[in-house]
Amino acid sequence: MTERSSPAYPPGQRSALCLTFDLDAHTMWTSKDPGNAARPAVLSSGDYDLGQGLDLVLGLLTEHGIRTTFFVPSDVAVDAPGAIGKIVAEGHEIAMHGTDHNPLPDRSRPAEAALLRTVKDTLEQVSGTPVRGYRAPLYDVTEHTRDILAEIGCTFSSNFMDAVHPYVVRGEHGPIAEIPTHWALDDGPHLLFANNPPNYRQFLANDQIARIWTDELRAIHALGGVTTMVLHPQLVGRPSRVALPARLIETAEELGEVWLPTMGELAAHLLDQEVT
Amino acid sequence: MTERSSPAYPPGQRSALCLTFDLDAHTMWTSKDPGNAARPAVLSSGDYDLGQGLDLVLGLLTEHGIRTTFFVPSDVAVDAPGAIGKIVAEGHEIAMHGTDHNPLPDRSRPAEAALLRTVKDTLEQVSGTPVRGYRAPLYDVTEHTRDILAEIGCTFSSNFMDAVHPYVVRGEHGPIAEIPTHWALDDGPHLLFANNPPNYRQFLANDQIARIWTDELRAIHALGGVTTMVLHPQLVGRPSRVALPARLIETAEELGEVWLPTMGELAAHLLDQEVT
Amino acid sequence: MTERSSPAYPPGQRSALCLTFDLDAHTMWTSKDPGNAARPAVLSSGDYDLGQGLDLVLGLLTEHGIRTTFFVPSDVAVDAPGAIGKIVAEGHEIAMHGTDHNPLPDRSRPAEAALLRTVKDTLEQVSGTPVRGYRAPLYDVTEHTRDILAEIGCTFSSNFMDAVHPYVVRGEHGPIAEIPTHWALDDGPHLLFANNPPNYRQFLANDQIARIWTDELRAIHALGGVTTMVLHPQLVGRPSRVALPARLIETAEELGEVWLPTMGELAAHLLDQEVT
Amino acid sequence: MTERSSPAYPPGQRSALCLTFDLDAHTMWTSKDPGNAARPAVLSSGDYDLGQGLDLVLGLLTEHGIRTTFFVPSDVAVDAPGAIGKIVAEGHEIAMHGTDHNPLPDRSRPAEAALLRTVKDTLEQVSGTPVRGYRAPLYDVTEHTRDILAEIGCTFSSNFMDAVHPYVVRGEHGPIAEIPTHWALDDGPHLLFANNPPNYRQFLANDQIARIWTDELRAIHALGGVTTMVLHPQLVGRPSRVALPARLIETAEELGEVWLPTMGELAAHLLDQEVT
Repeated sequence: MTERSSPAYPPGQRSALCLTFDLDAHTMWTSKDPGNAARPAVLSSGDYDLGQGLDLVLGLLTEHGIRTTFFVPSDVAVDAPGAIGKIVAEGHEIAMHGTDHNPLPDRSRPAEAALLRTVKDTLEQVSGTPVRGYRAPLYDVTEHTRDILAEIGCTFSSNFMDAVHPYVVRGEHGPIAEIPTHWALDDGPHLLFANNPPNYRQFLANDQIARIWTDELRAIHALGGVTTMVLHPQLVGRPSRVALPARLIETAEELGEVWLPTMGELAAHLLDQEVT
Repeated sequence: MTERSSPAYPPGQRSALCLTFDLDAHTMWTSKDPGNAARPAVLSSGDYDLGQGLDLVLGLLTEHGIRTTFFVPSDVAVDAPGAIGKIVAEGHEIAMHGTDHNPLPDRSRPAEAALLRTVKDTLEQVSGTPVRGYRAPLYDVTEHTRDILAEIGCTFSSNFMDAVHPYVVRGEHGPIAEIPTHWALDDGPHLLFANNPPNYRQFLANDQIARIWTDELRAIHALGGVTTMVLHPQLVGRPSRVALPARLIETAEELGEVWLPTMGELAAHLLDQEVT
Repeated sequence: MTERSSPAYPPGQRSALCLTFDLDAHTMWTSKDPGNAARPAVLSSGDYDLGQGLDLVLGLLTEHGIRTTFFVPSDVAVDAPGAIGKIVAEGHEIAMHGTDHNPLPDRSRPAEAALLRTVKDTLEQVSGTPVRGYRAPLYDVTEHTRDILAEIGCTFSSNFMDAVHPYVVRGEHGPIAEIPTHWALDDGPHLLFANNPPNYRQFLANDQIARIWTDELRAIHALGGVTTMVLHPQLVGRPSRVALPARLIETAEELGEVWLPTMGELAAHLLDQEVT
Repeated sequence: MTERSSPAYPPGQRSALCLTFDLDAHTMWTSKDPGNAARPAVLSSGDYDLGQGLDLVLGLLTEHGIRTTFFVPSDVAVDAPGAIGKIVAEGHEIAMHGTDHNPLPDRSRPAEAALLRTVKDTLEQVSGTPVRGYRAPLYDVTEHTRDILAEIGCTFSSNFMDAVHPYVVRGEHGPIAEIPTHWALDDGPHLLFANNPPNYRQFLANDQIARIWTDELRAIHALGGVTTMVLHPQLVGRPSRVALPARLIETAEELGEVWLPTMGELAAHLLDQEVT
């Protein structure tokens, strides 16, 4: 999978901003430590994810007329179809994020392909929408992942940290768009806290975090790349933290010529260019 | 325990601010490592908790006419009845915080119920006041905790991170008010330091921490929720750090319509609404 | 050892500031991991301690006419008598800091007493000055430490974090002054870095650290306490970091009525008051 | 190797600034955990190192007419000769950084000498340029390293943290220049992030990091020393982070009399003075 091409955005757009969300709910905690299943207060952050956090995040997106992509573990979709319904009703896209936020139990190609097929089917059934892309829990893909995605009818992966421009790779089963990101654009390193290593850390005030994110958005915009935010309603959806994606939206408006597509839309645009 | 209702505050109040304290004293350190019992300098922070730290915190509260809730491990109450007396004399409420700040030794319902009954009795004997609520050490509740609290005559739990509004849950033994909080509103993540992982970390200056707390207070106020601060005299009671709760009080005064009740008062108000 | 008394400072002084230094040199690293003895680049920070770092620190103190206390592991004194000579020549006091910065190999009273006697003798021989006080490596004292100090003719300990006022404790062998400190006033939590947990952390800019220290100095001054800084030439003696103790000195000058004694002088003053 | 001398810089220069880079690519990750070899998203940061990151860094250096030194593991040079070619084409110097960023497999003098000879040969073959210096992965040198460097025809080491002035040591096989550095001048402590301890940490905004670096540059300049930056294209080469070395260059221009040589040039100057 070595063939790559540099895409252009639609006319009038210089860069892209993907404000995506991972809706991990309880799986954020059970995948860190199975013992958390018996710790209601730890799990309660996952309830915030599906409740107040999701409401604040959806409110922000709707206020600005933004449709984006939500990556959802299939177990979360099955357990909380109402949350998926709310997301879909606002026009957002549902994409894959594994089953239960755990690493792949079997990293062979057949096992990974079977798992991704099942996840895709489940998400499509719960959401009633087509599912076209994947972010692996903790970005832990294999060498097979992108070709499997092409094989099962997907158009995008958002897992790599090798570039600031989205690009197309072509494997045995066809092309797939990679929409790269970086840990600094994930709200986990900034806002995730747990009462044990490595997540027992300080919190920083919004100004520090917003500065990191808007600096990166400005610099990626100057390069014509894609700023892929990886956000979580249980983190950036805290009452005072929802101001952080709001600042990115403001900065994008100031910059102008920033396209805010769903990942499916960005991938479709890239793949269209690929063909012609 | 799935029934919930959204409460209103007393007339003229838009949100609540609970500036609660956990008085862990030596148990903060012996529960981290039993070996600390033989480390007088480590334990000495617990002496600060009961001495200078408590004095500075009580002084601040009295200066502003605030009565609040102190969560106290029963071992601390037994060892330091004088500190409990000082707290009660200023009109504050005493609530449960386990025996020795260790996790529950037995998570079965009968064992937890027996433990909480004993803790309640001990605190009531030492303090001479009724005890009505519970914060588990490290928020580590079980699925039984809130129903046990109702059973033994309590009115509130302050352990969950699922919401910004206080709410009532109703189990087999009656209703209980949950007054939710969040790690970012606990002074531990900001100010706790120990000479080993995960607590060997940087300290941040007051401006960073105050900004996080007042941003969250303002945002929760706008939502009509409760800002539950979880503070420790040995952390936020350091001479320069007592300015942090002072800033929250100033911000609440600026905002106006912020109710600063004891947790018992907030719970009583919620449960009254429940009945009518 | 429960008897305590609150001291007053000399006429015209409202609080005290002890800008003390621990000169750990290589022992900072060999006590963390004996394997560091074979890692010249790790040890080289200890050479900075005895060389450029010490020069910058001594230069600052001399510039401001401040004499203070240097705590030195006896192995460091034996290995680097020249550094001790430089310190003593500037009028500073030498005090005990264990042998090799390791925890006590035997925590029994006789073993600890024998060790402290040997350390005292060694330091007195190398420095040619009387040795009167002790800070345990990592503040790790025992229940016997302060009484042993009284027994062997010392006047002060600087290990506890229980108070902001210096105080006198009286054991079987006589009185000893405790000059308390706090982790936030140690430059280790702010500036120590090593390539493994828990010391792999961010560095913060001077403004953040200076703010924490001067806030605490101002607040302790208001309470009439002692601000005990625990500094290391290999940390705060980096070229840009020596500005940090400089800021404390400036703040003390602004405040006025801040006494900057050696710990021996402070202890003598406290013990004199004790007797009368 | 105890003989040392204090160097002067060329006429008109008061201090030196070495903006060096370590081009670790995939070896940054495989040396942390061999399992990372099967984690494409983790490795992808190494692709950024060789691609976008290197381009941004080379662009900055060219824009300011700066030639500097790139330390490259020999495995990286063999795998990515194109990247080495780009670096050399811009006039930069290639220096040694081990084979695969792992610690020395055998710390005996003959084994280390054999390894360094092979690394030197490999780098010279790939780059077509003479190789004259060494930075050990994680600065992990042995007591033999500098004498081996002299023996195999090198002129400099950049591993120690004992001084702010470059100096010459003379072993059995001749003189070698040490160009010292410090962890705070390495971008790893500020910008390296991995999803496990000890590298799961907060990111800080550019202002904090730039302040630390420019404060140190100003203070070392005042002392007439060398500010040795240890940078990584995959860290400081992120779109918004390349502003950090840019700020150092601006500060050096403001200060004036700051020499920005390659390490080979600085070493040659030092060794020339040594002889005369």
